[in-house]
Amino acid sequence: MSNLEKVSSNKAFEGELAKYKFKSSVLGGLDAHFNLFLPFSKDGSKAPVLVYLAGLTCTEDTGAQKGGFLGVAASQGIAILFPDTSPRGAGVPGEDADWDFGTGAGFYLDATKPEWSKHYRMATHITVELPQVIEAAGIPIDFTRQSVFGHSMGGHGALTLYLASKTKQYRSASAFAPISNPVKAPWGIKAFGGYLQGGVDEALDKYDATALISKTTDPVHILVDYGTADNFYKQGQLLPENFLKAARDAGHDEFQVRVRSQEGYDHSYYFISTFASDHIHFHANFLKA
Amino acid sequence: MSNLEKVSSNKAFEGELAKYKFKSSVLGGLDAHFNLFLPFSKDGSKAPVLVYLAGLTCTEDTGAQKGGFLGVAASQGIAILFPDTSPRGAGVPGEDADWDFGTGAGFYLDATKPEWSKHYRMATHITVELPQVIEAAGIPIDFTRQSVFGHSMGGHGALTLYLASKTKQYRSASAFAPISNPVKAPWGIKAFGGYLQGGVDEALDKYDATALISKTTDPVHILVDYGTADNFYKQGQLLPENFLKAARDAGHDEFQVRVRSQEGYDHSYYFISTFASDHIHFHANFLKA
Repeated sequence: MSNLEKVSSNKAFEGELAKYKFKSSVLGGLDAHFNLFLPFSKDGSKAPVLVYLAGLTCTEDTGAQKGGFLGVAASQGIAILFPDTSPRGAGVPGEDADWDFGTGAGFYLDATKPEWSKHYRMATHITVELPQVIEAAGIPIDFTRQSVFGHSMGGHGALTLYLASKTKQYRSASAFAPISNPVKAPWGIKAFGGYLQGGVDEALDKYDATALISKTTDPVHILVDYGTADNFYKQGQLLPENFLKAARDAGHDEFQVRVRSQEGYDHSYYFISTFASDHIHFHANFLKA
Repeated sequence: MSNLEKVSSNKAFEGELAKYKFKSSVLGGLDAHFNLFLPFSKDGSKAPVLVYLAGLTCTEDTGAQKGGFLGVAASQGIAILFPDTSPRGAGVPGEDADWDFGTGAGFYLDATKPEWSKHYRMATHITVELPQVIEAAGIPIDFTRQSVFGHSMGGHGALTLYLASKTKQYRSASAFAPISNPVKAPWGIKAFGGYLQGGVDEALDKYDATALISKTTDPVHILVDYGTADNFYKQGQLLPENFLKAARDAGHDEFQVRVRSQEGYDHSYYFISTFASDHIHFHANFLKA
């Protein structure tokens, strides 16, 4: 029996945005929350799903409230799953000390350092546990048709979960201002050093999009947008050029990996909402193929 | 010389969302903030403007972040002005005691009780001061083409500022889940009793949309949406039926006053964003006429 509990429900466009919570065994028994937007089905069929991974300090609500995704998703018949960005209330010492590590900053990985590894397992939470919990509850999502997108830390998550999946769980990936080469960026170096026993060396195989794309020979479907007025881009936290160069060097052309520099846009949800429709239409090509 | 200061700027769609602050003489010398979305002009012409009035507890940011207005406004070439919902930091005793009175709950009126009348003058702030300050700063807005819309308390503000204007300042008004007959609703009775020396009696002439429409003989352009799953509607805070009946009794037909009951929607910004495009297109008919 599923322990999934519906916390709230809002009608939005021609669909329902529902918030759920459940006791997550993957996250060490903590309560986990997520939002799920489900377009109304005209024929009873299950909807394909796009997983949205939010950035540092965000929650399962941020993308739902500010992303501007729901209207386009409803018209395309695509569900959107909004997970949280970390476990909540794990009680690990130091968890709440910094905004870019610990609570709200799970980095979509499975921690291997003993103090973090019981709770900080967002990679398995998102790729394995959430689909199982949602299917077990009988919610009409077709998890054979999944894609993934995200913002900043969540863009890192989208690219790495897509590229690292041995089972090709996701059909396509896209990202707004992703942390594209975290082993060379301050945020990533801090996170990997904190969560992983092997630090950045351990991250290379699984959690660095630039390293992953350089070793990927299969065809991929990736769209990345970043803004030239993004201060985190200017500070070298995002490094999308590194990702693009690695993709091209590995033989992925512009039809497989598209990286767009958007003049004058910044790191905010105003930037995201501007290109929200583009990203959902990009994924629709693969989710509805 | 204008004391207007640009606090932040975000590119959004094909336009700029800028936050400004200035010392507001109308609000008793307090700092006032507002957001202004200005679509990029292709020919240097000034943009018509739609004023968005937010609801209880909200700020100048809420509609900009969650309303889903900016993309449609950009494509229509319409600016959107987002004022705050009350003065901030007036220091009136009791100002922060309740969420539905005082800070965040200015009710778009000019208070007449002595303890409130120095600072709580949102009606004059929005109808007189903001246009003057923005024009004086040379920002290319055409204030001869204004319309107004809002949510809940802000829907009340939109309808009453539109209907009470002797100068026909606004060409059209629309509202999401407005407090439509506040002299008969708990929120309105509390606010008018608190801010106005004459209480609800003083409010009838200027601050009650239902009373105002019943005395309006000129043609009007009004659109109202509310959701049937809105708990505040169910509790009798909104009373849109009273407004609709008064409009019809005064001879305003469905082409002048349209009140739509939206099945299953609630009071949230998910409801607002669903109908955002409708409302902006409604106003575009008059702003671009």
